[in-house]
Amino acid sequence: MGLESYFEDFARRDWQETVPDGTVRLAIVGIGGFARNRALPAIDASDYCETTVLVTGSPDSSLEIADEYDVETVSSYDDFLEGDATDAYDAVYVATPNATHGEYAVAAADRGKHVLCEKPLDTTVQRARATIDACDDAGVTLMTAYRLQLEPSVRRTRELIEDGVIGDVVQIHAGFSNPLLEQAGPESWRLDPDLSGGGALVDLGVYPLNTIRFLLERDPIAVTATTHSTDEAFADVDEHVAFQLEFPGVVTASCTASYNSHPTSGLRVIGTEGLVSVSSPFGGVVPHDIYVECGDVGMEYGGAPGDEVLEEFDYFGYCILTGTEPEPDGEDSLRDIVAVEATYGAAASGKTVEIPSLE
Amino acid sequence: MGLESYFEDFARRDWQETVPDGTVRLAIVGIGGFARNRALPAIDASDYCETTVLVTGSPDSSLEIADEYDVETVSSYDDFLEGDATDAYDAVYVATPNATHGEYAVAAADRGKHVLCEKPLDTTVQRARATIDACDDAGVTLMTAYRLQLEPSVRRTRELIEDGVIGDVVQIHAGFSNPLLEQAGPESWRLDPDLSGGGALVDLGVYPLNTIRFLLERDPIAVTATTHSTDEAFADVDEHVAFQLEFPGVVTASCTASYNSHPTSGLRVIGTEGLVSVSSPFGGVVPHDIYVECGDVGMEYGGAPGDEVLEEFDYFGYCILTGTEPEPDGEDSLRDIVAVEATYGAAASGKTVEIPSLE
Repeated sequence: MGLESYFEDFARRDWQETVPDGTVRLAIVGIGGFARNRALPAIDASDYCETTVLVTGSPDSSLEIADEYDVETVSSYDDFLEGDATDAYDAVYVATPNATHGEYAVAAADRGKHVLCEKPLDTTVQRARATIDACDDAGVTLMTAYRLQLEPSVRRTRELIEDGVIGDVVQIHAGFSNPLLEQAGPESWRLDPDLSGGGALVDLGVYPLNTIRFLLERDPIAVTATTHSTDEAFADVDEHVAFQLEFPGVVTASCTASYNSHPTSGLRVIGTEGLVSVSSPFGGVVPHDIYVECGDVGMEYGGAPGDEVLEEFDYFGYCILTGTEPEPDGEDSLRDIVAVEATYGAAASGKTVEIPSLE
Repeated sequence: MGLESYFEDFARRDWQETVPDGTVRLAIVGIGGFARNRALPAIDASDYCETTVLVTGSPDSSLEIADEYDVETVSSYDDFLEGDATDAYDAVYVATPNATHGEYAVAAADRGKHVLCEKPLDTTVQRARATIDACDDAGVTLMTAYRLQLEPSVRRTRELIEDGVIGDVVQIHAGFSNPLLEQAGPESWRLDPDLSGGGALVDLGVYPLNTIRFLLERDPIAVTATTHSTDEAFADVDEHVAFQLEFPGVVTASCTASYNSHPTSGLRVIGTEGLVSVSSPFGGVVPHDIYVECGDVGMEYGGAPGDEVLEEFDYFGYCILTGTEPEPDGEDSLRDIVAVEATYGAAASGKTVEIPSLE
């Protein structure tokens, strides 16, 4: 198969095997910046989802946005937990602060609703397991909102790797930096470890972590790490993190994340026979720029970005409508939470920490 | 100062303040692949150096190359050590296997000859110090052959960083892979730790290490590392290494090197206000491709590669002719040797290892 064939029909939905009927009615729980600016427009454009309920801490201030997207029901968090508008939605998209994900996800599952939950599933292994168990017990679909797994650049990269185009993967470099204070200000819940579970590692570093696990279809077995905070605003969470993961098959991944440097991201996978490099994979609007080298041949694809959030919601809707198990399931996030805990342990101890297997 | 001003007269010799008279006559000690293919042609094209003596293990087989470059004297290692042709050269370029560097460098210094020594200066701290001391005692110039420090892409990158164009440096990614077996075969002395002092880290990883030290003008204070060897040929030295350096001022550098993956190299420096990325900095023929981002502005320079080995020899000759102390001096290599020892210690122990200061 020629290299260029990987670039044909670049944004193809390789996950789609049929065209299901109907749409999934969503309650959006937590109307923060990402929900407003990315999720609601994506769902509006989606084939398989629609927004029917908004759940927010300040229902009055969300009426305008409800109006904009023709959403009939706006509910408070408490009313939602008490069962308000239960008949008006089939599934929830949980986009509240991290430590509260489980509460809303479990409440929804207990009412037989499917769950799309922002990453991480929760801030502790124990609570993340409780969400997984609640969805299992209720027989509902649980997906973690790893939008990168639906991003065509990442999916094409995985195909190239799977097919051995670059030989055996040897070393990976990946990083993601995004200045939090400029974007969310010093009052952001992300600076409160009780709500966030951590700083740059939890919020940004999880993108390289999860994407590399997705690309390699392997879990890391050990980690070393360094965290730093110098700006006072980051006194309670990691401002910068550099961590080095070790995967089975003698693969290392050198990863970084930062809450306080120039916004950028990168991913470079080096194998025995070639390399794949993705420009700006993690920033949310991903230019479809992939550079592949294989032996003496180099080839670049440069296409316009798509909307990976739309892809994500359509995939979620598709999974529910067709009874497909989502690949980014609850366990996928649980594995990241375990790796994140090990990474913080490595940073605190200055030692290599083994990452326990879930099996 | 505009961003583009850094790219003007890209290959300018900012180190050159005068035009010295004369040339430095060189004895090339060790006629391996690099000496033949890169050093001899570069010296031939050099303004301030000329080759007058070849010192080799097999003088007969070097007569042809001596003829090609009009070199009158070809000597054996033993004859060189005994003082053969001492009047025919002013300085030596030592390019023998690593563990023998010191022997030839010290012999030359003891005769009052200047020394350009391939990196590392030697394979142990103690022997590297002996070379530095011998050159100090003799009052001769000692330079380590860190060609990257004379590479215009690296020098321009340092200027950008020094001027604060990208703010404070936060995180660096750098890697260098070069398949040894394809290039030097399984009999290479580089696979014998007694001669090489180590594998991918010593031979390739030292490029990111030294270049980052040069760019930051700081020494690393701690390191974590992982080494791997799976191919039988690399039973005695590291085939792959991933190491993470910590520098004063809260800077981390995530580095990799590999003797057994697709040949490639990369360097990406992320600061609080921007980033600099150099394409293929370490492979020996460096495309003058630098990409700089500063706030919302990105700018790329793409020029033809120069010959950094020519730059290196001209710089060495210039330093001798003008009495200038070379920046890549003996201590520069000693600091790398100390960091390399710490890195192997970190890999062996699975712990963060502090890198002792030379001061």
